[in-house]
Amino acid sequence: MQFSSSLLENAVNEFARFPGIGKKTALRMVLHLLKQDESITENFSETIARMRRDIKFCQRCNNVSDADICSICANSLRNQSLICVVENLRDVIAIENTQQFSGTYHILGGVISPLDGIGPDQLQIESLVQRIQKEQTEELIFALSPNIQGDTTIYYIQKKIKDFNCRITTIARGIAFGGDLEYADELTLGRSLQNRMPVDKYISH
Amino acid sequence: MQFSSSLLENAVNEFARFPGIGKKTALRMVLHLLKQDESITENFSETIARMRRDIKFCQRCNNVSDADICSICANSLRNQSLICVVENLRDVIAIENTQQFSGTYHILGGVISPLDGIGPDQLQIESLVQRIQKEQTEELIFALSPNIQGDTTIYYIQKKIKDFNCRITTIARGIAFGGDLEYADELTLGRSLQNRMPVDKYISH
Ligand SMILES: [Zn+2]
Ligand SMILES: [Zn+2]
Repeated sequence: MQFSSSLLENAVNEFARFPGIGKKTALRMVLHLLKQDESITENFSETIARMRRDIKFCQRCNNVSDADICSICANSLRNQSLICVVENLRDVIAIENTQQFSGTYHILGGVISPLDGIGPDQLQIESLVQRIQKEQTEELIFALSPNIQGDTTIYYIQKKIKDFNCRITTIARGIAFGGDLEYADELTLGRSLQNRMPVDKYISH
Repeated sequence: MQFSSSLLENAVNEFARFPGIGKKTALRMVLHLLKQDESITENFSETIARMRRDIKFCQRCNNVSDADICSICANSLRNQSLICVVENLRDVIAIENTQQFSGTYHILGGVISPLDGIGPDQLQIESLVQRIQKEQTEELIFALSPNIQGDTTIYYIQKKIKDFNCRITTIARGIAFGGDLEYADELTLGRSLQNRMPVDKYISH
């Protein structure tokens, strides 16, 4: 792309650095800022910079937070003895959006993946084990990706906490609601056959 | 969308303000910044703010520019006596990307559109007329949207400069290369029949 202004070019390149944002979208975003008052851009720029500078990670669950302890961990109306183990912040937001969960979270920061060089030490597993022991957690729900890496991670953590008095569950896996059976992968289809449930239970879900 | 951090929420909302950027994409962009070193965000934020603060509009053609006169107008290798009239900056970038044009531009800032309340006075038409008179421009190429508003604008400008010794042309309009004839709108199809050209000329294009 040819630009007659290096100020413009640099700004477009900054937006185009984001994953999934191509040069055309980046240009559209910059032109949007140019069309508006300078204060809009100032505000945008300051909000983003402040977020990155001031954001904290919850000392208990690793969730992003405005304080040392996140608003979920600090909320006494939530079941603090129930931990949902997830890979990342996006999973927390997805589960919160369902409004079906009133426990707490523990963000691992990924799953065990030897091929990608990610072992247990790169993840927040030790802090989870310590947390369960210290807090005498009643139940751990795994909500990890339904793949080999997710299963490996569950297996690894399960072994570590087997002596604690903590119930361990995993979210139900199967054909997605509205999903097309013929497009489901073999593993999912196989598991959803193994984990078949009585129709009356299914309907009540 | 539920967020456990207002810093995060504000940042996501800022990104979601851009046209075509939904909440999910905005979240992905913010998480991308969170994954990287703070300096990446600082640099992003400063580059965008600097662009908006320091960018100028060329006093001759209204193109965005780092200086009072843009790099296209200041380039003596380009034909300064040839002006391509366009609606906006995006058109300049699109034409520059073809690498088929070595003249200059004049950005109108839109086209005449009474229904949208845009008359000649809201556009850079008077500055174009003065520029042609002062610079004794040899040729004006209209590269406006092929619709009623574009045609109205061409007609209006044409009348204003009819006494100047300036050749007036418009970019060829017709079925887009690779375009499907049956999906072309009637006006385009009609015009491309009226403006039919000898095959030998067409092939050499
Ligand atoms: Zn927390
Ligand atoms: Zn210029």
